[in-house]
Amino acid sequence: MLDHFFRPNSIAVIGAAREEHKVGHSVLKNILQYGFQGRIYPINPKADSILGLKAYPSVKSVEDSVELAVLVLPSQLTLEVIDECAQKGIYSAVIISGGFKESGVDGAAREKELLSKIKRYGMRVIGPNCLGVINTHHCLNATFAASSPPKGDIAFFSQSGALCTAILDWAQRERIGFSKFVSMGNIVDISEVDLLEALEEDPETRVILGYIEGIKDGRAFMEVASRVTKKKAVVITKAGGSAAGARAASSHTGSLAGSDKAFSAAFLQAGVLRARTLEELFDLARAFSYQEVLRGPGVAIITNAGGPGIIASDAVEYAGLRMSSFTKETVDGLRGGLPPFANLYNPVDILGDAKSERYRYAMEGVIKDENVHAILVILTPQAMTDMDETARAVGEISARAKRKAVVASFMGGPLAERGAEVLSQYKVPNYPFPERAISVLSAMYRQRQWVERPVEEPKLFKGDKVAVREVFRQCLERGYSTLAEGEAREVISAYGFSVPRSILVNSKESAIKVAEEIGYPVVLKVASPDILHKSDIGGVRVGIRNSSDVVQAFEEILEKARRRMPDALVHGVFVQEMVRGGKEVILGATLDPQFGPLLMFGLGGIYVEVLKDVSFRVAPITQRDAREMLGEIRAYPLLKGARGESPVDLEAIVEGLQRLSQLVTDFPQVLELDINPLSVLPKGKGAVAIDARINISPG
Amino acid sequence: MLDHFFRPNSIAVIGAAREEHKVGHSVLKNILQYGFQGRIYPINPKADSILGLKAYPSVKSVEDSVELAVLVLPSQLTLEVIDECAQKGIYSAVIISGGFKESGVDGAAREKELLSKIKRYGMRVIGPNCLGVINTHHCLNATFAASSPPKGDIAFFSQSGALCTAILDWAQRERIGFSKFVSMGNIVDISEVDLLEALEEDPETRVILGYIEGIKDGRAFMEVASRVTKKKAVVITKAGGSAAGARAASSHTGSLAGSDKAFSAAFLQAGVLRARTLEELFDLARAFSYQEVLRGPGVAIITNAGGPGIIASDAVEYAGLRMSSFTKETVDGLRGGLPPFANLYNPVDILGDAKSERYRYAMEGVIKDENVHAILVILTPQAMTDMDETARAVGEISARAKRKAVVASFMGGPLAERGAEVLSQYKVPNYPFPERAISVLSAMYRQRQWVERPVEEPKLFKGDKVAVREVFRQCLERGYSTLAEGEAREVISAYGFSVPRSILVNSKESAIKVAEEIGYPVVLKVASPDILHKSDIGGVRVGIRNSSDVVQAFEEILEKARRRMPDALVHGVFVQEMVRGGKEVILGATLDPQFGPLLMFGLGGIYVEVLKDVSFRVAPITQRDAREMLGEIRAYPLLKGARGESPVDLEAIVEGLQRLSQLVTDFPQVLELDINPLSVLPKGKGAVAIDARINISPG
Repeated sequence: MLDHFFRPNSIAVIGAAREEHKVGHSVLKNILQYGFQGRIYPINPKADSILGLKAYPSVKSVEDSVELAVLVLPSQLTLEVIDECAQKGIYSAVIISGGFKESGVDGAAREKELLSKIKRYGMRVIGPNCLGVINTHHCLNATFAASSPPKGDIAFFSQSGALCTAILDWAQRERIGFSKFVSMGNIVDISEVDLLEALEEDPETRVILGYIEGIKDGRAFMEVASRVTKKKAVVITKAGGSAAGARAASSHTGSLAGSDKAFSAAFLQAGVLRARTLEELFDLARAFSYQEVLRGPGVAIITNAGGPGIIASDAVEYAGLRMSSFTKETVDGLRGGLPPFANLYNPVDILGDAKSERYRYAMEGVIKDENVHAILVILTPQAMTDMDETARAVGEISARAKRKAVVASFMGGPLAERGAEVLSQYKVPNYPFPERAISVLSAMYRQRQWVERPVEEPKLFKGDKVAVREVFRQCLERGYSTLAEGEAREVISAYGFSVPRSILVNSKESAIKVAEEIGYPVVLKVASPDILHKSDIGGVRVGIRNSSDVVQAFEEILEKARRRMPDALVHGVFVQEMVRGGKEVILGATLDPQFGPLLMFGLGGIYVEVLKDVSFRVAPITQRDAREMLGEIRAYPLLKGARGESPVDLEAIVEGLQRLSQLVTDFPQVLELDINPLSVLPKGKGAVAIDARINISPG
Repeated sequence: MLDHFFRPNSIAVIGAAREEHKVGHSVLKNILQYGFQGRIYPINPKADSILGLKAYPSVKSVEDSVELAVLVLPSQLTLEVIDECAQKGIYSAVIISGGFKESGVDGAAREKELLSKIKRYGMRVIGPNCLGVINTHHCLNATFAASSPPKGDIAFFSQSGALCTAILDWAQRERIGFSKFVSMGNIVDISEVDLLEALEEDPETRVILGYIEGIKDGRAFMEVASRVTKKKAVVITKAGGSAAGARAASSHTGSLAGSDKAFSAAFLQAGVLRARTLEELFDLARAFSYQEVLRGPGVAIITNAGGPGIIASDAVEYAGLRMSSFTKETVDGLRGGLPPFANLYNPVDILGDAKSERYRYAMEGVIKDENVHAILVILTPQAMTDMDETARAVGEISARAKRKAVVASFMGGPLAERGAEVLSQYKVPNYPFPERAISVLSAMYRQRQWVERPVEEPKLFKGDKVAVREVFRQCLERGYSTLAEGEAREVISAYGFSVPRSILVNSKESAIKVAEEIGYPVVLKVASPDILHKSDIGGVRVGIRNSSDVVQAFEEILEKARRRMPDALVHGVFVQEMVRGGKEVILGATLDPQFGPLLMFGLGGIYVEVLKDVSFRVAPITQRDAREMLGEIRAYPLLKGARGESPVDLEAIVEGLQRLSQLVTDFPQVLELDINPLSVLPKGKGAVAIDARINISPG
């Protein structure tokens, strides 16, 4: 896919320039110098030849067919040339030209025109306003960057062109090789989703890195990403997560930030590793490019320095990995060949005077241990250290260790650098500080768990769509988009939620009658679509135990409603079954602009409002997702029955979340839906949705 | 202080060796090569001369006086030579020799002997088992390290010698200069506390870095550190915080890990910046060495790349800093000289084709803004970037900007490196990723706040020491170290805590009488020093409202105690005033092995037990510390009155924490003291300590 971009046999550089300071010159020069093997056509009406190549006045004047056009032109001219390209039969274009959306209102209009043109022609476009495209395995560098990356198996796509240039420069020093390199610019057409799809089966790419500020089609992204991540690690930095960052992002590429929580949830559900910093992005790239697998959480540390060994042990625990405990055979084996004061237990301290042979001995000793899934080799340069030999020893053992990961932290400056260089020849990722090496192992383990985890489809529950659609229709017909209490109850009932029995009454007499029918104690509540916060105005009375209290409550509630909200439409009073003995949780859903319905779970009251102890997932969710949502909140032990309390019906919550997920997936017009509280009864007894609030799109 | 270590005029290298592979050779060579200006005496009975210097058979045979001895000998010989040193009048020794505590039981015995010798002689010792000592400003390198650091103003002390060698190597590449460099080894004598004191007034040191695994005397450390940190930034990495790390540390140098929470609290209270990773340690070192102050939280970002600008904006917000909002003058000024598509608001995007002049213009524009306290300059290398010129522009403006901090993130590889080199000449700290630059600014701001914060002494409350001492005495006399309920109440009452009225009764009749005297409702509780968890055996009844309930409760409680704990000594039943309308919090204290009494605060019940929502401080605390303890817990809004509840008496908690602090400071024999719950009444109404548990040292 996107073959004409990555493996064109002919390129027209439209706007190629003779003048060295011009971008159109740099692009042509890069294509030439990087050794592109196909035909190259510089297009420039004012030049005869550029950089030794014959120049053409226009694409139409090129005698042969052309597969890829690279445009380096003012934006207005770009629009005209697009027509010519189509006429010439070129349906793939990299538009480096700026002057579109990023440059204000006029530019945005031009970008709109560009979009409509390429749609009409069926043309695929990368850009505009981008650095260009590189495919190291096709000797293609169609960018104006000052450096080119070494060949390798890391693909990178970026919404920031300037970041690309920094990374190209950085890749040089770090000996990190790239396969494809795509600056996506304003993304008028080809986006991160297209690129993920194109890279999915690309044999030259093992790891996919991305830098993004926003995602146009969150659902498509999740769908494609969850497939690709099963085959290759996908590591993405998403910027603009803070309020300050979101403001900056929207003024940068005009991308809509969306909720950062939605991004985190979506990445998690799609198996995308989210790098929290750029440094982490590249730390992970190196590891996934170099190393195979991490089959378990057990880490062994071998070090010639006690302090860094301790630091790394701390990091193992903080990262949720485990310090392997060695078998007796391993310890005995180590004892046989290490000096008397060496520490034979994990972290294995082979002492400051360790040379390559001792490193080799220790590594061979621990790598056989079944409790060891990864080895971190730490080295601090000592006077007696044989740096190159040691690095080679580590590299050789790593190369033979097919089922174990080996990472290194050779610490220091120029001396350590020499070791790192040798290590990289053996594809052992090296990090200057041990904490970073451990953080990488933790991501490698998460990736492994993701790959091994069976794909699960969302369960399908019975839901009465017709009934819900009818409630929504009536609601909008009457001109409101916040459902009344009874309506909300009807909607969630239609998707299988238990709700308390609740009957609307208009007189004291029927209130008593209904209360007796339901059985005391009961709850009385004002019934009004206009009164949202019923408790606040005294519109709710709970625990009513006899008929005289019913009468009193009935009168008081209506009186208060009249007095506090004189303009509210009041339908009467609900007499409601009172649910007791439940623990209150909240199930919520909001509509995220990029990912659609976003589900939330938390314990009721202060847990959500004060402690912000909540978890999120993008709908639709599987049963496993629902279970994870429960487990992620800090207060989870309270549900399981901490402090001698009996556990609540966890399965009822798990099911409730899935039912809610199905409801909001079926009805994307739901802007907000809160079941608050869902009263969860003891294990096996289910849960009752006491109250619900639903907002739908008025459009 | 420690002048003979840092500025000796003569050194004896005892164990100097001719053989190049020996440590005793490396040390002498380093001293010579680093250009030491004083007299050097190699001591070796088997050599005539070493490295061109006349060798002496023993220190005693040296004709002149010697100020510093550096010992590189087997451990047994070290012990003998120490005597000779004392006889020769040398009272300062760096013992590089290993074979002491780190090497097992025999070594530990030798270390003990060493300690008793140096105490006897009044000798000061660095080591044993260390790398040695460097003072770049005295041309002194008495180590066996392979590299030496550039001259600078950063002092470093370390409990890990191997880490030192890595840092020396690293300092070379990073152009980071050091003043003093001390490997402390096993710390038989000179410790981090001595070094902090010695460095406090050292004119050659601006920043103090440390790597530690444990602290011998936590109180002394806090006392000295809180003084030093007011003058210089002190940044320390403390390893061994996790369980795995603590195990590794204890097998490494035998240092006692202590509670990591105590370390964090102690560092905070002493103004020590705790670096969470080694990378952060050096990131901070560079900033504090290079830059002056950060007078406020306002950060301006100037960038030629949108993406990294957004990433940095995110980081500003996450770090608790603030993106400066510019004044109208600033924005107008920027508009006057920046290209039309530049972003004039923060982050200022001066676009990819920015050259040095545009950087200069933008920096000069924002640096005048009163809302700007720090500038982060981001650069990604573009084709048109004039790297050296730009770095110089940034450097020049930084050098002139006396009251504003300037940090940089020139991103990339070799190109960026060139810029970084120029920046370092101008003392602008550069970080390869913008997130690290922001994290550094945040630490600089914390340091500034610490320095400006007035010193506050703990308030003194009235406490009846005599009464407490008497309770403890009686307790131990009777052979138990967990106080009975009444005793615990007596102790905390003596330090001013209100406790509920509570009277011990032995008959139903007196129970009724007392209950009526106290006033209903009352609480009845079994009185027994042997029953710790009274509620669990049914030994507590609350909310008793009349005499017949008193009788019933009295009988039931005694009956249950007899049945469930037949061997318990039961003194009778407490009839207790029932405190209502309070919010329950916990005030606790435990004895930390390194820092002494450690105070804890949290909300009662699940908040502590399930959510672990607690804060810590080392006693004694000031009023400000106590207030901070309240503010640090996530549930703090509940105390202030979230969700329409009325606020509790915060001042009563603040005072309670201080009283508790004074109590455990006065009585270091208290191993554990929990006031659980302290029932805090509404604002202005105080708090009542409902229950307390106290454990004292049996010895």
